[in-house]
Amino acid sequence: YASNGNTKALNSAEEELWITIRQEASDIVSEESFLSKHLNIYILCHGSLEHALGFLLANKLASSTLNSDDLYSIFLDALRSSRKLIESIYADLKAIKEKDPACTSYCHCILNFKGFQACQSYRVSHYLWGRGRKTLACVLQSRISEVFDVDIHPAAKIGKGVLFDHATGVVIGETAVVGDNVSILHGVTLGGTGKQGGDRHPKIQDGVLIGAGASIIGNVIVGEGAKIGAGAVVLMDIPSKTTAVGCPARLVGSRNNPSKLK
Amino acid sequence: YASNGNTKALNSAEEELWITIRQEASDIVSEESFLSKHLNIYILCHGSLEHALGFLLANKLASSTLNSDDLYSIFLDALRSSRKLIESIYADLKAIKEKDPACTSYCHCILNFKGFQACQSYRVSHYLWGRGRKTLACVLQSRISEVFDVDIHPAAKIGKGVLFDHATGVVIGETAVVGDNVSILHGVTLGGTGKQGGDRHPKIQDGVLIGAGASIIGNVIVGEGAKIGAGAVVLMDIPSKTTAVGCPARLVGSRNNPSKLK
Amino acid sequence: YASNGNTKALNSAEEELWITIRQEASDIVSEESFLSKHLNIYILCHGSLEHALGFLLANKLASSTLNSDDLYSIFLDALRSSRKLIESIYADLKAIKEKDPACTSYCHCILNFKGFQACQSYRVSHYLWGRGRKTLACVLQSRISEVFDVDIHPAAKIGKGVLFDHATGVVIGETAVVGDNVSILHGVTLGGTGKQGGDRHPKIQDGVLIGAGASIIGNVIVGEGAKIGAGAVVLMDIPSKTTAVGCPARLVGSRNNPSKLK
Repeated sequence: YASNGNTKALNSAEEELWITIRQEASDIVSEESFLSKHLNIYILCHGSLEHALGFLLANKLASSTLNSDDLYSIFLDALRSSRKLIESIYADLKAIKEKDPACTSYCHCILNFKGFQACQSYRVSHYLWGRGRKTLACVLQSRISEVFDVDIHPAAKIGKGVLFDHATGVVIGETAVVGDNVSILHGVTLGGTGKQGGDRHPKIQDGVLIGAGASIIGNVIVGEGAKIGAGAVVLMDIPSKTTAVGCPARLVGSRNNPSKLK
Repeated sequence: YASNGNTKALNSAEEELWITIRQEASDIVSEESFLSKHLNIYILCHGSLEHALGFLLANKLASSTLNSDDLYSIFLDALRSSRKLIESIYADLKAIKEKDPACTSYCHCILNFKGFQACQSYRVSHYLWGRGRKTLACVLQSRISEVFDVDIHPAAKIGKGVLFDHATGVVIGETAVVGDNVSILHGVTLGGTGKQGGDRHPKIQDGVLIGAGASIIGNVIVGEGAKIGAGAVVLMDIPSKTTAVGCPARLVGSRNNPSKLK
Repeated sequence: YASNGNTKALNSAEEELWITIRQEASDIVSEESFLSKHLNIYILCHGSLEHALGFLLANKLASSTLNSDDLYSIFLDALRSSRKLIESIYADLKAIKEKDPACTSYCHCILNFKGFQACQSYRVSHYLWGRGRKTLACVLQSRISEVFDVDIHPAAKIGKGVLFDHATGVVIGETAVVGDNVSILHGVTLGGTGKQGGDRHPKIQDGVLIGAGASIIGNVIVGEGAKIGAGAVVLMDIPSKTTAVGCPARLVGSRNNPSKLK
């Protein structure tokens, strides 16, 4: 298969992960029979992670006016068409399992983490936005906000290996860009100043960690590997590998000579 | 019609807005057939904005024990009886379309913005509260908090032309007063100190902007046109046309000589 | 009955409270016929608070793959088996009625306060966690976060007489401990630093009040009766009966000589 094409072909690490997920699901069913229907419908009756995840998200985002079968085929279509989407989902799963001490299995993440579910739903809305289906993308954004309490504009760009931990209250604006391997806690805002239209939201580089309730406002850059403390309000560029805390945020160390993280 | 009476009569600008909304809905159906049922049920099959909005809100707030048809007739009854309610809805719609760069159409706002939906639901609960149906008003408040993540006490007073942007986590207490043309971002609290009962919540005057995650606590006044920064914690009166930032909040400029906004 | 055993026997104060709740429900039905079905299904058709609450929570947390009847029997089983669970529920109800000026009746709290509902659901998940049913406990945690916007790890320990006011966005981590008679406003985080596994979350002693949007991060102790201001970010131990405000938080008074609360 072509790793950079638009193909749904999986590499062997991805195929192995799906086998692991099925094994986890079977183990749960053996140990907790009450969850048998839950695990069967969401994991075990599906032939691939793409089918399982597409079904789960469609099921959660459906409503009396948005048919779940139709949503499922929209989700599957996106997941089958974009190699980048697939890679992002697998990278997210691995990052969450690795970084979050409360994540005890892949299955737990897929079934129980609304941050993961919201992020993958956003990825589909972003795919639709990029193909001109903007109205549908916005309807999905709205349902994601209602169901998962996470409001990500479908035009925002988010890399892979991203962890949205707890996730309630996250808001990410239209022109925000988030790099790879970023961790974003609940209550985080990547917002605009409200003074202008156009490119008005933050650019978050690779490996950044943003603590609970932090707000990053305006078209500012948070450099690679920087850490933003819980509750910080960031209104300026943050150099890479530095830490910003406080409201308004200041660099730990000093602005001209900030403490660099090792 | 009488602009200050309790009549549902619409003025011509309001009638025109409904025609625009229907046109937007038809355009969406032509372009995205998946949304045809969604738009028909929520917009196109209704004869007026009041019917459409009443139906949409009743549908979203209904539950296994709160019948959607009965809720619909409660909503319609409120919308038919109060000219003030109708004026507020139209003013909110116009303000959101004007102020929020992400709001591309009235239809988008009505269907997708949980801040708008929560605010209009609150307006009905406030109407019911004022007519002595306090228990029902509180049941609605609870459903609004569950469905839209916005918790506004039905006794709170909120003016018209108000924008609740993103809206997750907003809390507005029983004796709070919010003026006209106020913008309130997600995560904002207009709360009490917990030390006392009675009149214990903030008074927000016309044209104020309150940034994401800001908390305004106690019976303080935020003067006309003031701006409260993201994450600010306001425990004192804020003069009109000034900006307050930080935790606890201080005025930009100085307290005795704050920078006035132009 | 044995007050310290695992028995469901109620004391007379608890039995009296249930009679009061039923009376409140009857009064509501007389005054607001629209709520007749709501009150009958959630309160009046049940023989005890345990049955009523178990049914209500099961009903709200059920989904297309989690059967409400099965959930109901899991909830009832927990409520019947643990005297501690029962005592906590009654103590929570009394504390909320006493402390929250917006809580006009026990019935209002049970039916309408998602903080109360989330807390009692967490108590059941904690019971299941303690009996080795960890996967089921985590599935409940996830549903509680989706439905009530409150994310409490089932391993966290929470005392009795606790008020979660408004509740949207509350996050409490795996190794957090919360004492008796604590009040926690919406948007509060009891989180980890992300730097380590193991015992990594705050210990909140009896009688603490934590304001809206405050974050307490790391394995720190907040001493008995301390107050944490809205939006405060607490990264250090807080002595008992002191107040901490700001981001990062400092003690009111001074660190070595903080103002003691009377």
